Parts: sequence; C-alpha cells; structure tokens
Amino acid sequence: MGAQTSAAPEFFSTEPLAADHAGVTELFAVLAYGELSAFYRLAEEAKQAPSLRGRIGVAKMAAAELAHFETLEAALTERGADAEAAMARYQGALDSYHASTDPSTWLESMVKFYVADGLAADFYTEIAGALPAEVSDVVRDVLAETGHSQFVVDEVRSAVAASRSERDRLTLWGRRLLGEAITQAQFVMAQRDELAELVLAATGDLNGIATLFDRMQERHAARMAELGL
Amino acid sequence: MGAQTSAAPEFFSTEPLAADHAGVTELFAVLAYGELSAFYRLAEEAKQAPSLRGRIGVAKMAAAELAHFETLEAALTERGADAEAAMARYQGALDSYHASTDPSTWLESMVKFYVADGLAADFYTEIAGALPAEVSDVVRDVLAETGHSQFVVDEVRSAVAASRSERDRLTLWGRRLLGEAITQAQFVMAQRDELAELVLAATGDLNGIATLFDRMQERHAARMAELGL
Repeated sequence: MGAQTSAAPEFFSTEPLAADHAGVTELFAVLAYGELSAFYRLAEEAKQAPSLRGRIGVAKMAAAELAHFETLEAALTERGADAEAAMARYQGALDSYHASTDPSTWLESMVKFYVADGLAADFYTEIAGALPAEVSDVVRDVLAETGHSQFVVDEVRSAVAASRSERDRLTLWGRRLLGEAITQAQFVMAQRDELAELVLAATGDLNGIATLFDRMQERHAARMAELGL
Repeated sequence: MGAQTSAAPEFFSTEPLAADHAGVTELFAVLAYGELSAFYRLAEEAKQAPSLRGRIGVAKMAAAELAHFETLEAALTERGADAEAAMARYQGALDSYHASTDPSTWLESMVKFYVADGLAADFYTEIAGALPAEVSDVVRDVLAETGHSQFVVDEVRSAVAASRSERDRLTLWGRRLLGEAITQAQFVMAQRDELAELVLAATGDLNGIATLFDRMQERHAARMAELGL
C-alpha cells in the first residue's frame, strides 16, 4: 500500500485501506452501474450490426457485462448496502459519458467497446491493487477478459485494413474516447468523498493519480495499435 | 409418440421421430432466433422502465434468454448445422411477430414478455414430448422457468389492482398477443417442410395440432389470471 500520506490534502484520511472502507461500496456501485449501462449500450448499438453474426457477438458481450453486474450487486448486498440507491449516485455521470460518446457507426461502437472497456479495466485494476484481497478479488473478477474482445479486434482490423479514411476517422474517435473517459473518471470520483479518498489512498497521492493516468494513456495506445489504429 | 399417421397428409413422413430428423435442426434454429430476438426486444423495451429496479430486472431477464440462446447455438453446432444460416430462415417471421406486437408502454412490455414466453414454452414443450430424450432435454432446458417472471407478475398485478382502465387495456392486449402468436406459429411452421413434418409427427395429426392450440389457450387464460387480468 505505502500511501504517501504526506502529499495528500488534509481532507483525505491517512488510514490504511480497510475492506469496510465506505469507498469500497462506492467503488462497487460505480462499477455495477458501469456494467449495467454497458449492457444497455451494447444492446442499443447492436442495431447497427451489419450481420446476424454481429448481433450475436454483441449480445454475448452484453450478457457478459450483466454477469459482472450481478457479481457486484451481490457484493453490494453482502456489504449491507442498498445496491440500487448506491448505483443511482453514478447514473448521471456515467449516462453523460455515454451520451457524449454516442457512436454513429457500427465500427465506432466496436472501438468504443474495446477502448472504454480497456480503460475501465486499467483504472479499476490499479485501484484494486491497493485494496484487501476480499475486495480486489471482486474487482478483478468483474474486469476479467471475457474472451469476446477478439471478435471486436477482428471486425475493426479488417475494416481499417481495407479503408485508409476509416482508419483515420477511427483513430480520431479513439482519441476522443480517451479524453472523455479521463474527464468523466474525474467527475465520477468527485461524486462522493469516500470514493475520492479511496482512489487517492490507492494511488498514494495526487501525483500518483497523474502517473496512473499516464500509464492508462500508454496502454490505450497499445490497444489502439492492436485494433490497427 | 403414437403418431396417428393415418390422418396425416401423404406429404408428411410417417416414420417415427429420430434425433437426427432434419426438423430438429429447424426446431433448434427457430428457438435460438426466438431467444436472440427476445434478448434484444427486452433490452429495447427496458427504456420504458419507470425505475432503475425495472431496468435491472429486465436486463437479467434478457441475459437469461441469451444463456438459452447459447445452449441452442451449441446444440446446432454439435449437429453440424450452420447455426447462423439456420436461424436466418426464421428471422423474417419472428421479427414480424415482434413488429406486430410492439408494446407502447412498460406494462404492455411486461405482459408481452410473460404471455409470449409462456405460449412459446407451452408449444415447444408439447413438441419436445414426442422427441428423443437427447433433443427434448435441450428444449426443456432452454424453456425452464428462469425465476424472473415473479418480477413481472408483481409489476403487473400491482398496476392493474390500482387501475380498472389499465386492467381493461391490458386484457385486450393479452388477447391480441395470443392471436398474433398463433398466427405467427403457423407462419413459422410453414417456413420449412422439415419443421412442419416434425410438429405434425409430434402432435399426431392436424386434429392434434388443433387440440394443442386449445390447450395453449387454456393455459394462456390461466397466465392472464395470474397477472390479475
């Protein structure tokens, strides 16, 4: 853990992270609402799928998100939290993220799914590293590779290999997704003091958060390359 | 089985149903496309949910449909069928059914889910009864009660208990769903000779089909009563 508490503002707790930290409930809640909204976004965006194969692929991805949601809902209930009330606190921020990054094509949907899923996994996995095993196990479980992303990689790679203009357009789209994700991550953290405190304790200090965002950008670039972008 | 083959038109096979009957592939395919389209319809209709609780409930029902879809897709692949091509044959008929019974309110969606799911289960369960165990097990597995319908019953019962006009409206809606389902079931069967042959062999003869539809109407009435309609 080794939180460099000297650099943290007084506002934040300097105690080591405990499994019953109120921020853990908030972390589970934001993750849970994120999975639920990913489920509905995928189902909505599948309308643009050019084939039955695409609709089947997206439905499976959506169901995998919902299985993660159910894990988190159970974890929230086990902590004695009102799962719906806890999630509702993040509805505005996450819905805004989706509204501001509404894909206009099937390929934009695919890139968004892959890139946003990856960014979320990077962020939450780093936070989970500083949490007690009983908490981090839940987080890692719901962020585990679902095995469906190969479908996305194949769809996007073949499309951008065939079209230079599509590649340029999707490259810009990927950059926009990164920017919006970082903006919204900060907005989400600001929703509840307990969550901000948890993230700060997990990353060490404000510099630690900046370093985390740098690492996320590097991994984002690697993911874009994987898509041929 | 006891197919009363004397009454069947010459067109239809008089042989006992075998697990490798071509109609079994068709049965799995129509069931599979039915589950996939139910998944997407539920996700679409959840937009009308009045609460986060409702959206969570519907997402879980949709994911349960998709789990059934995956069972059928695997069964199709195991039979050496091209799952997507087989399903595509029923896309038109099933999409038409959904288009002709497009709910305009959240309660209409809930009634449709409950009633249509029940009608489909009645129909396929009767057919499955005449099939070899290895086939009927798959059908019964995907039609098994998912445990989510109590959510629907609660939503509808409380709404109709509070409003006489809502009850009258939903009663008419239920009747329309039954009529469309029976029309569409006949249309689906007409898509492929192999499927019509399977259904006829399973029910005995054309009288058997009529009796099946009578039984379905009785069970439909019982389900409507369960909803307070």
